[in-house]
Amino acid sequence: MTSNKEPKKVVLAYSGGLDTSYCLKYLILQGFEVHTVLVNTGGFTQAELEATAQRAYQLGSTQHTNLDIIEKYYQKAIKFLIFGNVLKNNTYPLSVSAERVFQALEVIQYAKAIGASSIAHGSTGAGNDQIRFDLIFQTIAPEIEIITPIRDLKLSRQEEVTFLQQNGVPYSWEKAQYSINKGIWGTSVGGKETLTSHLPLPEEAFPSQLQKEAPEKVILEFEKGELIGLNNHKDTPANNILQLEKIAGAFAIGRDIHVGDTIIGIKGRVGFEAAAPLIIIKAHHLLEKHVLTKWQQYWKEQLGNWYGMLFHEGQFLDPVMRNIEAFLADTQQTVTGKVAVTLQPYHFSLDGIESPHDLMNTTFGQYGEINNAWSAEDAKGFIKILGNAQTIYSHVNALHHD
Amino acid sequence: MTSNKEPKKVVLAYSGGLDTSYCLKYLILQGFEVHTVLVNTGGFTQAELEATAQRAYQLGSTQHTNLDIIEKYYQKAIKFLIFGNVLKNNTYPLSVSAERVFQALEVIQYAKAIGASSIAHGSTGAGNDQIRFDLIFQTIAPEIEIITPIRDLKLSRQEEVTFLQQNGVPYSWEKAQYSINKGIWGTSVGGKETLTSHLPLPEEAFPSQLQKEAPEKVILEFEKGELIGLNNHKDTPANNILQLEKIAGAFAIGRDIHVGDTIIGIKGRVGFEAAAPLIIIKAHHLLEKHVLTKWQQYWKEQLGNWYGMLFHEGQFLDPVMRNIEAFLADTQQTVTGKVAVTLQPYHFSLDGIESPHDLMNTTFGQYGEINNAWSAEDAKGFIKILGNAQTIYSHVNALHHD
Amino acid sequence: MTSNKEPKKVVLAYSGGLDTSYCLKYLILQGFEVHTVLVNTGGFTQAELEATAQRAYQLGSTQHTNLDIIEKYYQKAIKFLIFGNVLKNNTYPLSVSAERVFQALEVIQYAKAIGASSIAHGSTGAGNDQIRFDLIFQTIAPEIEIITPIRDLKLSRQEEVTFLQQNGVPYSWEKAQYSINKGIWGTSVGGKETLTSHLPLPEEAFPSQLQKEAPEKVILEFEKGELIGLNNHKDTPANNILQLEKIAGAFAIGRDIHVGDTIIGIKGRVGFEAAAPLIIIKAHHLLEKHVLTKWQQYWKEQLGNWYGMLFHEGQFLDPVMRNIEAFLADTQQTVTGKVAVTLQPYHFSLDGIESPHDLMNTTFGQYGEINNAWSAEDAKGFIKILGNAQTIYSHVNALHHD
Amino acid sequence: MTSNKEPKKVVLAYSGGLDTSYCLKYLILQGFEVHTVLVNTGGFTQAELEATAQRAYQLGSTQHTNLDIIEKYYQKAIKFLIFGNVLKNNTYPLSVSAERVFQALEVIQYAKAIGASSIAHGSTGAGNDQIRFDLIFQTIAPEIEIITPIRDLKLSRQEEVTFLQQNGVPYSWEKAQYSINKGIWGTSVGGKETLTSHLPLPEEAFPSQLQKEAPEKVILEFEKGELIGLNNHKDTPANNILQLEKIAGAFAIGRDIHVGDTIIGIKGRVGFEAAAPLIIIKAHHLLEKHVLTKWQQYWKEQLGNWYGMLFHEGQFLDPVMRNIEAFLADTQQTVTGKVAVTLQPYHFSLDGIESPHDLMNTTFGQYGEINNAWSAEDAKGFIKILGNAQTIYSHVNALHHD
Repeated sequence: MTSNKEPKKVVLAYSGGLDTSYCLKYLILQGFEVHTVLVNTGGFTQAELEATAQRAYQLGSTQHTNLDIIEKYYQKAIKFLIFGNVLKNNTYPLSVSAERVFQALEVIQYAKAIGASSIAHGSTGAGNDQIRFDLIFQTIAPEIEIITPIRDLKLSRQEEVTFLQQNGVPYSWEKAQYSINKGIWGTSVGGKETLTSHLPLPEEAFPSQLQKEAPEKVILEFEKGELIGLNNHKDTPANNILQLEKIAGAFAIGRDIHVGDTIIGIKGRVGFEAAAPLIIIKAHHLLEKHVLTKWQQYWKEQLGNWYGMLFHEGQFLDPVMRNIEAFLADTQQTVTGKVAVTLQPYHFSLDGIESPHDLMNTTFGQYGEINNAWSAEDAKGFIKILGNAQTIYSHVNALHHD
Repeated sequence: MTSNKEPKKVVLAYSGGLDTSYCLKYLILQGFEVHTVLVNTGGFTQAELEATAQRAYQLGSTQHTNLDIIEKYYQKAIKFLIFGNVLKNNTYPLSVSAERVFQALEVIQYAKAIGASSIAHGSTGAGNDQIRFDLIFQTIAPEIEIITPIRDLKLSRQEEVTFLQQNGVPYSWEKAQYSINKGIWGTSVGGKETLTSHLPLPEEAFPSQLQKEAPEKVILEFEKGELIGLNNHKDTPANNILQLEKIAGAFAIGRDIHVGDTIIGIKGRVGFEAAAPLIIIKAHHLLEKHVLTKWQQYWKEQLGNWYGMLFHEGQFLDPVMRNIEAFLADTQQTVTGKVAVTLQPYHFSLDGIESPHDLMNTTFGQYGEINNAWSAEDAKGFIKILGNAQTIYSHVNALHHD
Repeated sequence: MTSNKEPKKVVLAYSGGLDTSYCLKYLILQGFEVHTVLVNTGGFTQAELEATAQRAYQLGSTQHTNLDIIEKYYQKAIKFLIFGNVLKNNTYPLSVSAERVFQALEVIQYAKAIGASSIAHGSTGAGNDQIRFDLIFQTIAPEIEIITPIRDLKLSRQEEVTFLQQNGVPYSWEKAQYSINKGIWGTSVGGKETLTSHLPLPEEAFPSQLQKEAPEKVILEFEKGELIGLNNHKDTPANNILQLEKIAGAFAIGRDIHVGDTIIGIKGRVGFEAAAPLIIIKAHHLLEKHVLTKWQQYWKEQLGNWYGMLFHEGQFLDPVMRNIEAFLADTQQTVTGKVAVTLQPYHFSLDGIESPHDLMNTTFGQYGEINNAWSAEDAKGFIKILGNAQTIYSHVNALHHD
Repeated sequence: MTSNKEPKKVVLAYSGGLDTSYCLKYLILQGFEVHTVLVNTGGFTQAELEATAQRAYQLGSTQHTNLDIIEKYYQKAIKFLIFGNVLKNNTYPLSVSAERVFQALEVIQYAKAIGASSIAHGSTGAGNDQIRFDLIFQTIAPEIEIITPIRDLKLSRQEEVTFLQQNGVPYSWEKAQYSINKGIWGTSVGGKETLTSHLPLPEEAFPSQLQKEAPEKVILEFEKGELIGLNNHKDTPANNILQLEKIAGAFAIGRDIHVGDTIIGIKGRVGFEAAAPLIIIKAHHLLEKHVLTKWQQYWKEQLGNWYGMLFHEGQFLDPVMRNIEAFLADTQQTVTGKVAVTLQPYHFSLDGIESPHDLMNTTFGQYGEINNAWSAEDAKGFIKILGNAQTIYSHVNALHHD
């Protein structure tokens, strides 16, 4: 690239860590004008945001921008993850996956807005993040070139450190024992144990540590499926999530390990801590058991799981995702009420719910006790006809049951 | 009914409680020759079985029989509930429902074997049990009349006690505060709280009480999906379940409340304690995450949930249940390995697994770290084509993403 | 019932046939003030409507009303049956079932509006219609008593005729060889053959007879899933359906026999003729294959089939039906374009489609011919990674394929 | 490649057409020892097989082999496609896709058996076949290199012809107007029309032409889901399929166009003619409607569709496919009986069935006519309780239906 040419503008998704710092320096040396962007989905403090900006400029970023998308992320993603009670493989609330998709959406919009010809990220070729980034990038702006130095060069950590040192970046880059990714919808934890199948993460790997022993009650208040209040105090759902995480984090609640099929076909294992997401989803689900019909719950589960799978796999822009959101939103009309939860060390239990839409209504009958709305004869007729198909099958095929 | 007629033979499903004791006396007074049967699925001790037999004879049973079906019940039901990771509404291991179906199957076979013309049970008209009993009875022996005094007469508890006293049965029939139903696959707990939507069950309602505080590790060993060993000691799966329940019961693990849609359309709420079922299902599920492919897990979940629903609703004899069992059994060929679990007060966590069939295999790559079996170029080609449909859709419909 | 009491008002769903004429006379003799209602969903001509009204008055109806609900029925039902490509068991467009549900909705609203204390219909106890009527009635107005003389009295046809003759009704009531039920969404045909499993209906059983031999082309124009034009002439969807039925009826298209599981557990078999519904659904489906993504189609099929099943079984008021409608409507945003269909004697074929949203777009590639948007290397990378899971499974489990 | 080195052995999937003839010559010139294999799944006559062998040797094949796998293909694929009533997108019986997968399986086994180090096929980079070949090849023999000259070189037809002429191959290679792929499970037809969205294939594009006008009846006899007889003559299922294709081909039955989502994300359109597959699947499906329960049919449809999708997309070796086969086979135990079908020009209709397992059994009731096994009161009780959930929902949420 000769100097009389206008340098090409690239937008780099920048976190301040070793990989993206390498990318930043590398791209500058390749002759790019690098614009760095950090997309905050709730995991960065103000101090961390400022430190990252400072480092970006020190490394040579032409322009660094911190984008805060917490509210947008809640409205366009978390809300539906709650509506759908989404837990990947019955375990994982999509803490990293949903966030990565929304970071990709934000970064590519930014790149288009400033007229960048390229976009870069620091993912390897062995994970899901590369797919989430690339899928979003190529769909929204197929004209923008994607540059991925870490994936292409397959560098070791030491090679990256050496390169940076040789290029005047003096940071020590001590390797943290556990790699942590924090956002509003949970924190992932990777370490040497998660590269095995048999080892659990040790206590110290988790960001929250047990601080409280005595059980504590919290009241979650939902309106049409959204968490509008906590302990009888109203706030935005996003704020309630952050607040609940603080309360429940003191009990070291919400830790688990997700074992899943990656988009690239290998199995992956990752630890996480997500107290608020797990409590909210389980409480929301309990409320739904009281206010939705059997088949509403059945189809919500089908569509919610599928939504979670496609989201996790980066296919957020498939139009079926919008169709499923329309379905899920439509089911939430009666999902209004309060859920009481008891927090204890390392776990929580659901006490019960109160809702004007509660279908457990004694006018008609009490389970196992009283049938007000029908008689013994009605029940007998019901069972007789309910059994017709089975009885005919047995009769026609002359089955002998043993 | 005049004395010169042969008395009609009826088989009564008898538990020794107030309702079935009422039925026994009532049927005798109606002129029946009553044969009582107790079907033990693992919830009765030898002493309880003997006491029940004694009471049956005291009340006038012509013949009382205790049938032990633990092994049959495991082979024909529990095994498949584990294969399918069946938790109704993601919560309830079908502790009572599966048991009731198998009691019904056993009692009706007994009635046919002894040539009874009628069969009786003590269920009310407001619950699921009447349906499980009647559906099985009418399918297997449509020629045998079903008699249900409690459902037909809608008696109060006091009326039953008075009737028995008037007929020379002197028992005190103190009402237990919580009604308990115990079997190998868990214990249900009903009480005044479970008739509300908002109250949890108190500590004392549960049969097991916390006895241990220090964490304890257990090793579950599966072979083709069956629990063949515990802590490196081999035994039959049924024995391992009973043994694990003892170990985990000391930690008061496995309590929860199931809120569900009954077969009769009302909502029902029931507490339960099922330490062994929950630990086994979660451990089995984790092992499957390592050894099954993505779509095997997907379809197992679909079919397992449906199997659980139909089973819970008494439709065990629908032939689709046999078809699903064939599917589930076929998936278990590689579900072999050990799962380590840590027990703590009120909860447990899964540490990890070891299996010769573990698909998390480093030859091909390590999630997020190393891609041995493919290159960066392969990954880019993969993502490009994976995104084709989405990109074309976006292009054709000229979407503006915000 | 003594004369000084106000006669009880009953609303009778009246069609003018033998069964409902019996009901009308019977209810009058029981002392009821009978209000008759005929709900027209497109199957009655003006002359037939007038003749039915006249007969109702002759038999003693206090007030007869013909309600025309074609447009409402289209907006609230047929539209969604098209969106969902609903064919029960891949065959039957719900010709009678959907209509019956909407007749029930209309009649019960009428009964509430005029303050009737009872409502009556002429269904037997052996079919699906009784369930559709009763389910809707008891949900919308549980306070109104349901009266069903034909079901209760289990009368033979001859007994009904004799009763009417004895009560001064002189009609001949010749039994038509085939019972016909006609509506905008198709005509059902029952006869002695449909009571067997092996006999087809004869040519003469069908209302339309072959009148044209030479193939004829029709163009169906859809906008957001609705049939807004026919042969380049715009009209309301309901009118287009009626018009298409006329055109295609001349080719005797759309005949088949539906074999299904009734709600009461027995198998039922019914002939039908539904040229317009079948052509519209198949044309709409073809258009969707061009404009929707793979997973949109997949989930539309799941939800559409379920919607059809619950609708067929009378559970139209389950709130999950509204949720599914929200999903289906949301998928139709790009289902706009023209479909060419060729009509021939007894069958039709789909020629092709034109749509601005057609995803078969040559910019990216031509199936099997040219790949513009990706290279051979991309394809190889795609396939390599797509096969990872399968390859790992095969490697780990050392499979020998034969 | 120098002459003192042993030439590398490559196995080429050879059809005798232009593309694979190019590959044959090209590979020889690259220094390979080429072994050609043609896998016959029922589409080649003895004369065609001999002509292809002759051409292979003329072009320089070291060894040409014709492998006949009709019976194996039936036992391992077609049988399950019938059990599952598999029609992709409700239309296409997988005529080419299933065949290609089995050709791939056979060719790679052959390559392993003769110790080849490479395997070659003639597919382009724009279709599904490359994926079916490569996925199977790389799973079964990851150590064998895959060579794909047509995909890699992106040659035009003319370039291939010129190359062959320059290398002494004198064939005229006239381009057929329509490319035809014939096998036991149907014939695909591609042409200039199928590259558009709006044009149908002309009459002459199809291999079978109308020869008969007068309707003709055929009787299909199934035993446990397999077609064991035709017109009361017993033969192997594979022979019956071939025989039925001959009979029905004279009526030009079974033509349609499949529009589908390819594995590479673009839409594809292909004509086909598959009289026997369509008649067999529809007849088999009708028989199942009579002998299977509602939920057996429901789950068969789910799993059958999924099986068809994964098969079509080349993922035949995913172990979930074996699990689904176990399910499908288990459902066929009562699918025994005869189905009568009437053939007419361009279409067929199903007359009815006879089966000892027919669940449409008059002992219990006749649909809409007689209820023997239950009373009017039973029906009322049934409907009352069936409606409980809906009624409670309506009551609790105070819905106003309009």
